[in-house]
Amino acid sequence: MHLLHQYLPILDWGRRYDRNTFSNDMIAAVIVTIMLIPQSLAYALLAGLPPEAGIYASIAPIVLYAIFGTSRALAVGPVAVVSLLTASAIGQVADAGTTGYAIAALTLAFLSGVFLMLLGVFRLGFLANFLSHPVIAGFITASGILIATSQLKHILGVAADGHTLPEMLGSIFRNLDQTNWITVIIGIAATGFLFWVRKNLKPLLKRLGLSSLVADILTKAGPVAAVVATTVSVWFFGLAEMGVKIVGEVPQSLPPLSMPSLSPELVGSLLMPAILISIIGFVESISVAQTLAAKKRQQIDPNQELIGLGAANLGAAFTGGFPVTGGFSRSVVNFDAGSETPAAGIYTAMGLAIAALFLTPLVYFLPKATLAATIIVAVLSLVDLSILKKTWNYNRDDFLAVFATILLTLTMGVEVGVASGVAISILLHLYKTSRPHVAEVGLVPGSQHFRNIYRHIVTTDPALLTLRVDESLYFINARFLQDLVQARVAEGTEIKNVILMFSAVNEVDYSALESLEAINLRLKDMNIGLHLSEVKGPVMDRLKTSHFLDDLNGSVFLSQYEATMVLAPSMIGPR
Amino acid sequence: MHLLHQYLPILDWGRRYDRNTFSNDMIAAVIVTIMLIPQSLAYALLAGLPPEAGIYASIAPIVLYAIFGTSRALAVGPVAVVSLLTASAIGQVADAGTTGYAIAALTLAFLSGVFLMLLGVFRLGFLANFLSHPVIAGFITASGILIATSQLKHILGVAADGHTLPEMLGSIFRNLDQTNWITVIIGIAATGFLFWVRKNLKPLLKRLGLSSLVADILTKAGPVAAVVATTVSVWFFGLAEMGVKIVGEVPQSLPPLSMPSLSPELVGSLLMPAILISIIGFVESISVAQTLAAKKRQQIDPNQELIGLGAANLGAAFTGGFPVTGGFSRSVVNFDAGSETPAAGIYTAMGLAIAALFLTPLVYFLPKATLAATIIVAVLSLVDLSILKKTWNYNRDDFLAVFATILLTLTMGVEVGVASGVAISILLHLYKTSRPHVAEVGLVPGSQHFRNIYRHIVTTDPALLTLRVDESLYFINARFLQDLVQARVAEGTEIKNVILMFSAVNEVDYSALESLEAINLRLKDMNIGLHLSEVKGPVMDRLKTSHFLDDLNGSVFLSQYEATMVLAPSMIGPR
Repeated sequence: MHLLHQYLPILDWGRRYDRNTFSNDMIAAVIVTIMLIPQSLAYALLAGLPPEAGIYASIAPIVLYAIFGTSRALAVGPVAVVSLLTASAIGQVADAGTTGYAIAALTLAFLSGVFLMLLGVFRLGFLANFLSHPVIAGFITASGILIATSQLKHILGVAADGHTLPEMLGSIFRNLDQTNWITVIIGIAATGFLFWVRKNLKPLLKRLGLSSLVADILTKAGPVAAVVATTVSVWFFGLAEMGVKIVGEVPQSLPPLSMPSLSPELVGSLLMPAILISIIGFVESISVAQTLAAKKRQQIDPNQELIGLGAANLGAAFTGGFPVTGGFSRSVVNFDAGSETPAAGIYTAMGLAIAALFLTPLVYFLPKATLAATIIVAVLSLVDLSILKKTWNYNRDDFLAVFATILLTLTMGVEVGVASGVAISILLHLYKTSRPHVAEVGLVPGSQHFRNIYRHIVTTDPALLTLRVDESLYFINARFLQDLVQARVAEGTEIKNVILMFSAVNEVDYSALESLEAINLRLKDMNIGLHLSEVKGPVMDRLKTSHFLDDLNGSVFLSQYEATMVLAPSMIGPR
Repeated sequence: MHLLHQYLPILDWGRRYDRNTFSNDMIAAVIVTIMLIPQSLAYALLAGLPPEAGIYASIAPIVLYAIFGTSRALAVGPVAVVSLLTASAIGQVADAGTTGYAIAALTLAFLSGVFLMLLGVFRLGFLANFLSHPVIAGFITASGILIATSQLKHILGVAADGHTLPEMLGSIFRNLDQTNWITVIIGIAATGFLFWVRKNLKPLLKRLGLSSLVADILTKAGPVAAVVATTVSVWFFGLAEMGVKIVGEVPQSLPPLSMPSLSPELVGSLLMPAILISIIGFVESISVAQTLAAKKRQQIDPNQELIGLGAANLGAAFTGGFPVTGGFSRSVVNFDAGSETPAAGIYTAMGLAIAALFLTPLVYFLPKATLAATIIVAVLSLVDLSILKKTWNYNRDDFLAVFATILLTLTMGVEVGVASGVAISILLHLYKTSRPHVAEVGLVPGSQHFRNIYRHIVTTDPALLTLRVDESLYFINARFLQDLVQARVAEGTEIKNVILMFSAVNEVDYSALESLEAINLRLKDMNIGLHLSEVKGPVMDRLKTSHFLDDLNGSVFLSQYEATMVLAPSMIGPR
């Protein structure tokens, strides 16, 4: 029973559902549905899929997340970055517009769903931590630039392809002579209008005396207004015959039952992209969910979130969709509009199902340039280059990771970019720990506290060398410590005792144990005692299982002060 | 001038060279040469190359290492593990016995030489630390088993191939009907004889009254005796006509001038193997060099060693050889025989050159089974499964790394094996640091020392929570700390102040900084003070470049004791 509640959060909030909650959820659902119709079409376009796929991908996934997810406000569906990743992954195995392409999208969603489920069931959500904050920030920023650039072709009405910035720009540049000026006018007008709505409409409406809620709904309806206005223009003036590309026929249908292909070849080439999409999607989703939950002091269970997102992606795979995750803008809108439970998501799904059944003929004349404009306006808010400056000021390693992530994402594509970001973060961390900071310490007079002799005024004794090792000892730095002690002892000929102060040593692995044994042997040869101080409990427990403590040519002291009392009482003086 | 001496260690020892050193070096060279002739032929066989390649690979490389290397005793040439890696790498691009195969070996040596040189010039020797001691031990053991198995076909006289244990055993098993029983008798006799020589000959000779030196030389000549006895038998009894495979014609020549192919395709497929061979070879070589140097209190410069080994491999690439490194057995023999300077290596090279010019016709009838026997006896000493038990007792993570390395090397091949070992070591380390040990600490009565409340009898105050974070804070564990503090504060409703004791925090990266900012904001909302204590100098310097300290809802204390005096004076009482 407890297990059932853990895996099915719907059982918790479903029991306490009342009329008041229903009406709040319903209002939120209406607002979100209005926002999602153009957004879903646009993200399908971005992923290279037919427009209806975007709507299908917003129906079953929302319902499944409502059943399995733990966030009260998260809205699941196609999002910009994941759609970009989808286009990049499938573009390598099939041509856009073909049946194979759509089936590859289903397979990608299926693999992503299975992977997320597995991570959740095996409680491996911590894997998302491999993406450091700067790498995520850099990746999102670079993705925003890539996505906006990818939409330029629709604004210009030219054919273009490519998955990196140079490829896209080169492709657009070569085809500039195809530019359709009517499309350009529609595209620029729509983009300008949407930017204006975003910045200025809500304050304006409030100044005109509208209530905040109404002003909000009208602002959210901005993209719908752009869609209506441009669609009507195209129909009325017959612009499609003048070369303006339109959405065209969209089937009137509920989400179809679809089967992803599991051919070994396709699975093989989509497995790594699916893993990448899962992790990026999870990171985006969990950040949004935790931000919103903190505002209402609700709890998010990361591992259950993985299951919720996994179910959502499996849902997308079997209902004609493509990979989905919890989106930032739609979730914030949902939250701001007052949704209280995941039921709001279910009502949104119903709204979209009605749209899929009855409203699709209305978008026949919708120009693709308008959808491109909604994407551009949405993603440019993701672009934030200030992370470069912030990390540069704080820490050059983090700067390097974010810079490489942005540069490589833009020039080599999203997969190389994010993988390099992760690899660089890990390598820089390992490099840093491979040359740990080791401080020679002395006693701060009048205290029992020991600090770096080069930073503080401290008492020392030439016969006693105390090295505070500021890093866990493991294979990456095992040899370093060995070399360091040897070099330092060779300098100080008066040294009779060496204390390694282990207050910052959180681990001693087998490689480091062998190095400590080597240090002990060499010092023994030189008639120098080797002692340890402030060894942490877990490290001590581990050392006790080896022969090192039996062979140690000295003692282990609870505190550095005790060690000094025994080995260099003159440093302390009469009490 | 200083730079010249740094890059050309020969200038140091060359100036002090005298008659006494000369005669010591010369004796060592004679012993090593006798040992190297069969060994070089054998390792060429192991690498899948014609026998003379083994001798060529021992001439120029030795001389170049003598000029550029820093070890006085290291003997460079083909070694078992590197020959195995070579066979595995080239086997994927060419068929053994073809010209393409020999050229691929040159290319591999060339790439390895360039890579080692680059590592040395850019002082990147620390990269070798990525191979933990257990991974190396496991890899060497598994390689020994693979090599011995690969030689079984020569002992049985059957054709067989494969680069993994199941492949090799399967291939031998399928061809068992081809077994040549005369070859089996030669192979088993040679193997038995060589084991006997290794274990029992030296004590026996000494009991017979021979001096230790003479006994040593005779023992080292064991393989030569086996070679002579079996060669003469094959020639005298005409065993080659009865199906015993022999070495056959070996050209009488000094090492030829050879050119590695640099076709992009070949370079592309050999680049990763070359990097792997370089790093494995370097690790093996530097361990031997440091062990021997420590015995005479000499210094080894790892980065100059890279240059020495790089030069040796470039030498091999242009003189008909294949990848080389500093070998354990040949170096120990060289050291034990009393060599004093790298000049001993140069004399060894001369000895081998003479052998290449005049002695090669003598090995025409040498059975391959004898060479296989020398390899088997040499590599079985590498096999040491005790590392499994040692790591199991000490640390399950290290055990897992060594176990995976052995298993994957045997079943999936050397490259997958060692790469997995490295990857597993790094991932396990990251996993460990992703869930750091965090201890709640209190004051040890009568001292200024703070320890874990669950391990020691300490004084605490319910209004003060002190958490000692036993790990550097970085992206892998940034979120963990955030969750932990929030959970702990939610439990203890009386808490008014939280101290994070940073004595074991050696780094705070940008991700962790953002987490600390989040913790600070949340505690501020709850009217709880956040303080830091015992922040190390380098960490403090870094924090000062951010806004965190300005926004901190509390103070930074030099020592935990000071912090307690201010925040919970009752814990300390009247002095």
